[in-house]
Amino acid sequence: MHNVGVNLTTITDLTAAAARVRDFVVRTPLLPSLWAPAARPLWLKPELLQPIGAFKIDATRAHGAEVVVVPPADRESAAAQVVAERGGTLVPPFDHPDVIAGQGTLGLEIADDLPDVELVLVPVSGGGLISGVAAAIKARAPRAKVIGVEPELAGDTADSFRAGRLVDWSTDDRARTIADGLRSTPSELTFAHIQKFVDDVVTVSEDEIRDAMAVLATRSHLVAEPSGAVATAAYLHADVPAGRTVAVVSGGNVDPALLLDVLSAQRASA
Amino acid sequence: MHNVGVNLTTITDLTAAAARVRDFVVRTPLLPSLWAPAARPLWLKPELLQPIGAFKIDATRAHGAEVVVVPPADRESAAAQVVAERGGTLVPPFDHPDVIAGQGTLGLEIADDLPDVELVLVPVSGGGLISGVAAAIKARAPRAKVIGVEPELAGDTADSFRAGRLVDWSTDDRARTIADGLRSTPSELTFAHIQKFVDDVVTVSEDEIRDAMAVLATRSHLVAEPSGAVATAAYLHADVPAGRTVAVVSGGNVDPALLLDVLSAQRASA
Repeated sequence: MHNVGVNLTTITDLTAAAARVRDFVVRTPLLPSLWAPAARPLWLKPELLQPIGAFKIDATRAHGAEVVVVPPADRESAAAQVVAERGGTLVPPFDHPDVIAGQGTLGLEIADDLPDVELVLVPVSGGGLISGVAAAIKARAPRAKVIGVEPELAGDTADSFRAGRLVDWSTDDRARTIADGLRSTPSELTFAHIQKFVDDVVTVSEDEIRDAMAVLATRSHLVAEPSGAVATAAYLHADVPAGRTVAVVSGGNVDPALLLDVLSAQRASA
Repeated sequence: MHNVGVNLTTITDLTAAAARVRDFVVRTPLLPSLWAPAARPLWLKPELLQPIGAFKIDATRAHGAEVVVVPPADRESAAAQVVAERGGTLVPPFDHPDVIAGQGTLGLEIADDLPDVELVLVPVSGGGLISGVAAAIKARAPRAKVIGVEPELAGDTADSFRAGRLVDWSTDDRARTIADGLRSTPSELTFAHIQKFVDDVVTVSEDEIRDAMAVLATRSHLVAEPSGAVATAAYLHADVPAGRTVAVVSGGNVDPALLLDVLSAQRASA
């Protein structure tokens, strides 16, 4: 569909993208988290405040789009068919250099706002977001580690990272997690970025994701969807290095029933 | 305790305060609300993302402070006694020119980010926030109206605004609203600002406040306390002018049980 080549995103690509998106995105601030222990200061990068939200089914319809629902395995062929029949431009959610560069602009913002950042935690699904963010951090704040975070139940990238090659998990396996935005798998393009720029990929359990959602809502006043909460879950529960940490909070399109359930569970255990 | 005089906050006071607070506060962005109708575009000013939160009892303890709990009517005398016995500096929550100027810096930010703003909705309690914001807006975006918002159950400022003089509501009356941050009453200093710079003061019901909390959580990914949600409630439910509107969302220290209750009620009525 397009020629991805093997070129990695450069700082030139990222700064050009930053200039292109400037008028169309909210410049989110880094939010200091006073509830974090002093030895592990935490800033949240609240990308969930972008008004457009992520490419989610209900939110997309609300913006007036027609949504064609197909089984996960048919997504690429169905999209190609729509383009062929109606004309139009295929915008893949992660597997494109422009998407990587655009999402990576938030890495430039992190480096601008916290030049002595030591650890950046980023959700991983198809890998577009972490590819761009990691390229930006390694260019602008090279002493910082970048660690990807996945649900255990969709931990294909962690497996691939350790194996040094793309390991295939079935779509059924990846569909088990409540983090429905993190069920994709990296492409050759994004995996090449992950191998080059990312220091580690860790996983978090479903309960840890739910706990992070409750912490974000009650302590930081942010409603995150499960996919948006995994980096915070890793800060709270995974074995990651100490130091000045940024967790990217990347999506807030949560089903109100799930949010209610998460808050109820927290109340019951409090 | 301090000499308030009758001097109103000036643009010089506001810009000096902005320089002083710059390194200690988060520069919050204006958040476009895609769920708002096109004829009444809405931006949220999410001050609830300030990590320090408001002067709330539990959050203050969590920061390590000792909290002395006294009946509402004894607050000023008890504070004076603590200062007399232990030394220390009394920082009133609203009735001081420095507090007005500091809180007013967010009005400068609104004018910088949206110079053609037409309406700014601001919560009113003791009036410090709206005094500063209104002074800033009238200096920097003078075509915009500034409207204060109170709970109906603590609508003393709306009464005073219409009467042209401070009307006294009992602390018991003002304590009925769930918006526990909006139970104070303006001082002579803040009421002078309100009379000079504010175009109107409107009220919202308890149900309208709860509805706004649910809308902010589910549509804008923000957990607001009742006091922080009143300006959004006025946008949604009160008789305010159309036009390019900013609602200040000023506090997020909500009791998790109340948040749960608000979201449950919304689910039940959906």
